[in-house]
Amino acid sequence: NHKPQIDNYADRGMTLEADLNQSNRYYLEREIAVIHKKPTPIQIVKVDYHKRSAAVIKEAYFNRASTTDYNGIYKGRYIDFDAKETKSQTAFPLSNFHEHQIEHLRKCVKLGGICFALIKFVRTNEIFLFKATDLFQFWDAQHNGGRKSIPKLTIQELGYNIKYRLQPLIPYLDAVDQIMD
Amino acid sequence: NHKPQIDNYADRGMTLEADLNQSNRYYLEREIAVIHKKPTPIQIVKVDYHKRSAAVIKEAYFNRASTTDYNGIYKGRYIDFDAKETKSQTAFPLSNFHEHQIEHLRKCVKLGGICFALIKFVRTNEIFLFKATDLFQFWDAQHNGGRKSIPKLTIQELGYNIKYRLQPLIPYLDAVDQIMD
Ligand SMILES: [Mg+2]
Ligand SMILES: [Mg+2]
Repeated sequence: NHKPQIDNYADRGMTLEADLNQSNRYYLEREIAVIHKKPTPIQIVKVDYHKRSAAVIKEAYFNRASTTDYNGIYKGRYIDFDAKETKSQTAFPLSNFHEHQIEHLRKCVKLGGICFALIKFVRTNEIFLFKATDLFQFWDAQHNGGRKSIPKLTIQELGYNIKYRLQPLIPYLDAVDQIMD
Repeated sequence: NHKPQIDNYADRGMTLEADLNQSNRYYLEREIAVIHKKPTPIQIVKVDYHKRSAAVIKEAYFNRASTTDYNGIYKGRYIDFDAKETKSQTAFPLSNFHEHQIEHLRKCVKLGGICFALIKFVRTNEIFLFKATDLFQFWDAQHNGGRKSIPKLTIQELGYNIKYRLQPLIPYLDAVDQIMD
């Protein structure tokens, strides 16, 4: 009953999304938090209904999401975040976010939600929780001549490093505890 | 600039979902609440990627939702609910809910969420907010020889009637205010 090394997880090539789903299942089963990834928004155009089998969607299109991917409840608080991966080793490109996602996060923050980004540097397998309020600073600055990315050094400084674990794989609620008021 | 009668709305034949979407947009624009309907969960099997146009989903199936349809934040609190319509004039059939939705609501209540059902009696165009904790009573009782539906009289007694309005069409957060601690 040995514990695999952190490197083993990196080798598996699992995506951030799959790792988060596993982590959210862990939190859900233990009634620590109820946090789900939202389904991909689809516009359905044509459906075949068969008598003897399940309905088959024959024509549909991807819609742009109007929110972030993850939300739910933890310790009585509303949680809202998005998870983003970057191959860059030096900075997180702000182009990973869309304006409407930032606007969504702004509204949730105003209403008292705990909002953040989970940023993964895939080359080094490092994950950081980065507060939405810090993200807004960089987002707004880029429109005023600021840079189009957040330096990794800044993320290391302002963010919260989340180390891979066995259960849950990404114990991001430990970092959430640190940003809760 | 006259206000249409309540009956006008009934005549439009709009569904509960469409009315709630309008109401949620109203609340969102005024930064009163951020509450969205989750997309329908779909399992995508085949996608055609065209160079010149949008990707087309050619084969996909409906997945069973593991949560309720609506969640979000209001006054700093996590909100979670489902919206259900019934053609019955005398009772709300519990078969409108699935076990996994009830389990989801139970977990959210435990963690401090504001959870409920919005129940619409379509024949009379009446909508009630019915607390999840009241719903659990009837849900559990049905497995112990209790009835398979909640009498409308009970819903009128324990629930909160929501009257159609112009903006928002379904001012359900007024009822939420009443069940907030
Ligand atoms: Mg995403
Ligand atoms: Mg529903």
